[in-house]
Amino acid sequence: MTASLTHLELTHLNLTHLDKSGAAAMVDVSAKHATTRLARAGALVQTTPEVVRLIEQALLKKGDVLATARIAGIMAAKKTSELIPLCHPLLLSKVTVDFELQPEQGQIRVESSCLLSGVTGVEMEALTAASVAALTIYDMCKAVDKAMIISDIRLLEKTGGKSGHYMLETEQ
Amino acid sequence: MTASLTHLELTHLNLTHLDKSGAAAMVDVSAKHATTRLARAGALVQTTPEVVRLIEQALLKKGDVLATARIAGIMAAKKTSELIPLCHPLLLSKVTVDFELQPEQGQIRVESSCLLSGVTGVEMEALTAASVAALTIYDMCKAVDKAMIISDIRLLEKTGGKSGHYMLETEQ
Amino acid sequence: MTASLTHLELTHLNLTHLDKSGAAAMVDVSAKHATTRLARAGALVQTTPEVVRLIEQALLKKGDVLATARIAGIMAAKKTSELIPLCHPLLLSKVTVDFELQPEQGQIRVESSCLLSGVTGVEMEALTAASVAALTIYDMCKAVDKAMIISDIRLLEKTGGKSGHYMLETEQ
Amino acid sequence: MTASLTHLELTHLNLTHLDKSGAAAMVDVSAKHATTRLARAGALVQTTPEVVRLIEQALLKKGDVLATARIAGIMAAKKTSELIPLCHPLLLSKVTVDFELQPEQGQIRVESSCLLSGVTGVEMEALTAASVAALTIYDMCKAVDKAMIISDIRLLEKTGGKSGHYMLETEQ
Amino acid sequence: MTASLTHLELTHLNLTHLDKSGAAAMVDVSAKHATTRLARAGALVQTTPEVVRLIEQALLKKGDVLATARIAGIMAAKKTSELIPLCHPLLLSKVTVDFELQPEQGQIRVESSCLLSGVTGVEMEALTAASVAALTIYDMCKAVDKAMIISDIRLLEKTGGKSGHYMLETEQ
Amino acid sequence: MTASLTHLELTHLNLTHLDKSGAAAMVDVSAKHATTRLARAGALVQTTPEVVRLIEQALLKKGDVLATARIAGIMAAKKTSELIPLCHPLLLSKVTVDFELQPEQGQIRVESSCLLSGVTGVEMEALTAASVAALTIYDMCKAVDKAMIISDIRLLEKTGGKSGHYMLETEQ
Repeated sequence: MTASLTHLELTHLNLTHLDKSGAAAMVDVSAKHATTRLARAGALVQTTPEVVRLIEQALLKKGDVLATARIAGIMAAKKTSELIPLCHPLLLSKVTVDFELQPEQGQIRVESSCLLSGVTGVEMEALTAASVAALTIYDMCKAVDKAMIISDIRLLEKTGGKSGHYMLETEQ
Repeated sequence: MTASLTHLELTHLNLTHLDKSGAAAMVDVSAKHATTRLARAGALVQTTPEVVRLIEQALLKKGDVLATARIAGIMAAKKTSELIPLCHPLLLSKVTVDFELQPEQGQIRVESSCLLSGVTGVEMEALTAASVAALTIYDMCKAVDKAMIISDIRLLEKTGGKSGHYMLETEQ
Repeated sequence: MTASLTHLELTHLNLTHLDKSGAAAMVDVSAKHATTRLARAGALVQTTPEVVRLIEQALLKKGDVLATARIAGIMAAKKTSELIPLCHPLLLSKVTVDFELQPEQGQIRVESSCLLSGVTGVEMEALTAASVAALTIYDMCKAVDKAMIISDIRLLEKTGGKSGHYMLETEQ
Repeated sequence: MTASLTHLELTHLNLTHLDKSGAAAMVDVSAKHATTRLARAGALVQTTPEVVRLIEQALLKKGDVLATARIAGIMAAKKTSELIPLCHPLLLSKVTVDFELQPEQGQIRVESSCLLSGVTGVEMEALTAASVAALTIYDMCKAVDKAMIISDIRLLEKTGGKSGHYMLETEQ
Repeated sequence: MTASLTHLELTHLNLTHLDKSGAAAMVDVSAKHATTRLARAGALVQTTPEVVRLIEQALLKKGDVLATARIAGIMAAKKTSELIPLCHPLLLSKVTVDFELQPEQGQIRVESSCLLSGVTGVEMEALTAASVAALTIYDMCKAVDKAMIISDIRLLEKTGGKSGHYMLETEQ
Repeated sequence: MTASLTHLELTHLNLTHLDKSGAAAMVDVSAKHATTRLARAGALVQTTPEVVRLIEQALLKKGDVLATARIAGIMAAKKTSELIPLCHPLLLSKVTVDFELQPEQGQIRVESSCLLSGVTGVEMEALTAASVAALTIYDMCKAVDKAMIISDIRLLEKTGGKSGHYMLETEQ
């Protein structure tokens, strides 16, 4: 959907989680076909070069900041349908969470991926994993930097399902 | 903490959730005093003007996108210690989640606040509320915009506790 | 099962969640066939005409009492197997919760529906959704009416599975 | 609150979980005093005399229907703030769930009690315990009676807190 | 795997939950075939003959220690993927938890079984059920015996899946 | 409590979670005083020397087996009252989980500690943390050793509360 959509087109769009009267409801997925579905999502923690180096040094010892954030992200992916009211429960086949430290920019890049053999997309699971991993980094570093910002939470790629393949342009 | 911290200063900083050997552990809060603590946090959902207007129109009918996101954010604040591994469980006194629609910019601003009479700060609870409210908006609008971005997840204000009052500069 | 069942017939009945020795156990569903299953359930909140009108007025503004109760009911349906000890976990395809305000009688009628493509019935999910939606209305109105009663929690209709179609007589 | 409240009085009432604009929010309890608070709630499962006798016979053996429902009710009381969106998390001091079998009427009466030394009332916890205990009985008996009804979910008594002692008239 | 594995062989083994860089990740099960899978696990609570007799006497009355532990074990099996970070969520078909009291030795033997029609083994679910059932017995008896020990938490049998049938020697 | 307790003494003991009729109930803690309470618990994972060395080698890289088990144990401590039916919810001040690798014996020793400023003991929280940490090690190593055994889950030390200081003899 781009900004050039006219009002006429808008009337054909619908917020899929609202029924005709505007009330919230879960979308019916009982007739959808099970396919293999993948989603990758990203997040960015903006802090200072010092904090990133501190994480890196901890990494050289036991790596627990990133290990903790990874586990938190993976476990959060499994909790998505408890957190997002209209998400369907589903049986994730695989979840990964990875990190890239960029000390010069004071940034930690988070990337998650979720895989499912099922009837619904898994972008919310990937986004939730990336968000909670980033929040966990925030939690473990907040004593040394109160001005951290989490941004760039977005879908990087999505495959499987009726809507076909989606990839963020900068990822192509 | 600013970028001018020297290496010497760094040695005095510590990632408060790591013990001496670098392993993860919850911080001991048993000797801290109970005070009234407040935290406000923000998040920004970047979508298109059309999607914001669509939410607005739904709002004029039954308002369920924002009502759903508000409930999701409030309930997520109560789940923070289940999501963030080293967060302490606590008894939130109050949680609010509010929204500001900016159709021209295609933006929805999320603001949360958490209040506690207790021994630990509540910034993670406020940040979690804002993040999950934003993810819920994303979930309910993703069928019409796959390129949404959630950003600007940050602490806006914090009061109570030993570290005193903190307010983001742009909020002052 | 009606009151005319003789003692002989009773010996053929069994409480399906008890094993031969009387101990609790989950029923084995591994050999059941996946079919599309639907259950609809109802609940009734009895309060005063004033409270129903108060909800109605709020509804005209932002509708949050019913919107909150709807979300609570939908999320509770997804938690059924965590609440009811011997319920099987399952992947709900769809959940809806709706309300009918009857100001003259001081009543709010709750109706839920759950849909599943799977091996177990979903009546407990529908009943849990209706119950928790009613409890949420109770919670939000209890400051103005301590004498509310929740009643009429019952199955309205059930389709799919070996036991065939069931519909409450007053619904036919 | 009775039906004789005039419109004038109504304007002084407020649904305490709605803020001025009508949006949902948790009530601020940070300034409330901790007192000992008790709530008792009831529920009624209406089934057939045969089913009640079946439960009773099981009771003579191992008692697992009621034991399971009791545990489910106690555990649900502890989950109340996860189920009811605007309930505060709290540290229950005690929960009990008891049953009275009335085979002639085909009824099982459920009674729960919750005790807290804290700042919020515990009626929602008692009501949730009674409701989930009743739903568990329903689950374990539904194979032999599809027409069960759960009713009479109500507050029986409440003590502690600013609003003083409340007791249902028929309990006095 | 036995102690005679040489270093050479060790290099062919891999800890299946670690990716090539050693980071934690869920194993991909999207290409695995759904089969019927069973796992049985055991645990042993070592206490004193008096405590076992106390449980037995309670059993003669209402049996609530073991009934409570049984329900706790069954519910814990359903929570396994929330507790064990890299476990896949799955839809258990059946869970049982049983006990054998050995008053002379002051022992309570716990045995659990889990059944699944799915793509992953269920040994962690069976082990979690047995462990939490044992912990619940511990909780209910700890006031009379602080020196209890839980031991012998192990897999007794496993069927289904690529790795074939496994049975503990002493069970054969 | 020792094996020499006579029958007379037994009648003075009571399983504190059973009420007079033998039904399960949470103990009333509303009149207990808040003190600082500590509990330490242990568990032992018995595997082969090869598996311990494999964990050790992974430790040299990123340490994720033990880091994952540590996080799992800490998060499980916070879930204790959800798992153990009659445990009170409480606000843990601190949780730690540590490991000692003994490659020669093929053993991993787990030790947890929980700290609380509150009215109930925290031994169940410490035992749950140790158990779930051990189960997580089991999960991550089960592909290379199906014959692992978890044992020696026991209380090592307990301080605070009416019952005074307790320490396992071998710890003294």
